Amino acid sequence: MIPAAAVDVSGERFRVEYRIAAAEPDARAIARDICVEQTVEFPLDRIPDGDIRDVIVGQIESFHMDDDRHGRATISYAVETSGLELTQLLNVVFGNYSMKPHVRVERVDLPGALVAALAGPRFGQAGLRSILEVPARPILCTALKPMGLPVVALSDLTYRLALGGIDIIKDDHGLTNQAFAPFEDRVCRCVEAVERANRETGFRSMYVPNVTAGGGDTLDRARFARAAGAGGLLVTPGLAGLGTMANVAAADDVGLPVFSHPAFQGSYVTNPDAGISHAALFGQIARLAGADASIYPNFGGRFSFGREECRDIANACVAPLGGLPGIFPMPGGGMTVQRVPELLDFYGNDVILLIGGGLFQHGPDLLENCREFRRWVDRWNTEYRIQK
Amino acid sequence: MIPAAAVDVSGERFRVEYRIAAAEPDARAIARDICVEQTVEFPLDRIPDGDIRDVIVGQIESFHMDDDRHGRATISYAVETSGLELTQLLNVVFGNYSMKPHVRVERVDLPGALVAALAGPRFGQAGLRSILEVPARPILCTALKPMGLPVVALSDLTYRLALGGIDIIKDDHGLTNQAFAPFEDRVCRCVEAVERANRETGFRSMYVPNVTAGGGDTLDRARFARAAGAGGLLVTPGLAGLGTMANVAAADDVGLPVFSHPAFQGSYVTNPDAGISHAALFGQIARLAGADASIYPNFGGRFSFGREECRDIANACVAPLGGLPGIFPMPGGGMTVQRVPELLDFYGNDVILLIGGGLFQHGPDLLENCREFRRWVDRWNTEYRIQK
Repeated sequence: MIPAAAVDVSGERFRVEYRIAAAEPDARAIARDICVEQTVEFPLDRIPDGDIRDVIVGQIESFHMDDDRHGRATISYAVETSGLELTQLLNVVFGNYSMKPHVRVERVDLPGALVAALAGPRFGQAGLRSILEVPARPILCTALKPMGLPVVALSDLTYRLALGGIDIIKDDHGLTNQAFAPFEDRVCRCVEAVERANRETGFRSMYVPNVTAGGGDTLDRARFARAAGAGGLLVTPGLAGLGTMANVAAADDVGLPVFSHPAFQGSYVTNPDAGISHAALFGQIARLAGADASIYPNFGGRFSFGREECRDIANACVAPLGGLPGIFPMPGGGMTVQRVPELLDFYGNDVILLIGGGLFQHGPDLLENCREFRRWVDRWNTEYRIQK
Repeated sequence: MIPAAAVDVSGERFRVEYRIAAAEPDARAIARDICVEQTVEFPLDRIPDGDIRDVIVGQIESFHMDDDRHGRATISYAVETSGLELTQLLNVVFGNYSMKPHVRVERVDLPGALVAALAGPRFGQAGLRSILEVPARPILCTALKPMGLPVVALSDLTYRLALGGIDIIKDDHGLTNQAFAPFEDRVCRCVEAVERANRETGFRSMYVPNVTAGGGDTLDRARFARAAGAGGLLVTPGLAGLGTMANVAAADDVGLPVFSHPAFQGSYVTNPDAGISHAALFGQIARLAGADASIYPNFGGRFSFGREECRDIANACVAPLGGLPGIFPMPGGGMTVQRVPELLDFYGNDVILLIGGGLFQHGPDLLENCREFRRWVDRWNTEYRIQK
């Protein structure tokens, strides 16, 4: 009752590596099921011979057992199934299978033609370094908080943080458009504060407001922030949508670096047998969705990510991905000034260090805390470059 | 270094019930940490006495141990922390804590004033029944597939499915705007097909295209679908964004029933100790985000949801929620015509039964399969109403 259909395809395919928490032969059967569920989602015996079976249904490119209880399958899909859209690409990668408790997306491998059709990062590491006029050293970031402060207090904080030499002063992801610190007023005053500090220091600190909102409102706030002189934009794709973040990155009337925040996305990584790997989610997918820097909770802080997972994310931020520029890993979450040398030993120069509350706890004088953060980075950078 | 701030708040608070996978006293400490992490995300000892500590930081309203290894805390937050926006509300509920492996959102409890500021469902059960002219019986739905069919084959299927008495013929969530079945052409022809069948049958079947895309494109497709005469809209909020779905539901120039698809959201529910409960995600949150019906995988199908979880979702679709109308539970995923009586015994009349591939497998004649699906529903409905 389904007609045979010729499907006009290029022959190009993208690949997804899945880890399957099952023993043989179940693991292999699950791999075959992924091929169907993620594409035609239809009884195979009711599809006539032809292109739908031959090219639309996913194909197992390789399969092996990692150990007795875990298989690993690489499955390829016709590029055309993605409609050359990020949201539909992710749907094919993991839409329905996100509801299965035993399959995890480890990585994606996309041909350049598909990646070129997506937005991707507008700036990447090199572009962001150029804007900040920081050609080589690690980049310093902090977050404006706590929620509840009025705009005048937040802009005063912004001024002091910029005076202290912090490169990127971003809104905490909990600041949106609450009555106690409305978005437009906050953006205008914090931009003014950072510009005033920059005139005094000669630095190029930037203020990065949080534009996360529902649907089109995110883009509206991004445009407002651009017009008001903000230096970049914080977007939480778990709330605004990955496609919305990609739209913000791609919009020519915005044209600002995008910083991706991991809030509300954590559930993809808390089950080791399911969800999406840290590297694929916070590295590859954030990058495909236009992030120039990807924030994630660092090892040893308030969250549960391990060293290896953080290493994987940082690697995925720069590994080849269809010709996209490399982006910054941006570890944060319970970091302290004392840990700067350890973090830089781990990440090297191409990192944005996000120290939020810890910067306020370090000592009684906020300005001095910022300067110490900056000194640690400068000192490490000098020594590191001499060693190199 | 943080000034004391007076925060103008109404005193109204919303409540979130969290299940915490830890023994005493850790579970209680985690509850206290949630209060801070989800709001000020700042060292408490660096916040001066005043409103930020007293009203912005979350408050434990109740705490008890469910068993030796699981605590349960109800935490309240000032309504103002949400900025009266869905995305920020979800950020306070679970933004950073989504990254913790031992805390699960069980339910939210929102005051009417907050719910009224969100969009919510435009139609709900009563509105959708009125459009379909189906005042009381269970509603029938199927999905157009497989991916790869051209528009002419999809519209022919639509015609036959409508002729067979299926109330709602929706795009499979994998049909977006691929070259083999482009969105605009597909919508126009499937609308025409369903209207042609309706003229013959006198039924009021509706075609529901999938408008899921990146950011503002979702709204653009929704407007096109409305203008073309579609009966409703399929949105996958895990891909488009929950806020985007809410925007579509609220847009007066769209004004169509919204059907929420669970793809890419499954990772929130696959870890029993983390994420979000089935009822909160597919019941409460889908409803707050404007869904008139919430699709989810039924027990006993291809997915792993259990009977109790499905019951919880169905209950959350209609339980009091700040004055919002009740919406339809829409179980699907591997359902068959033979299971209709069992499903209706379980769900009663107020359900949309989604049978996709199973409708094509039931027998050799698609039209007859549809009519049998319809007969089962009509028969059950008659007997059920006589019993009542």
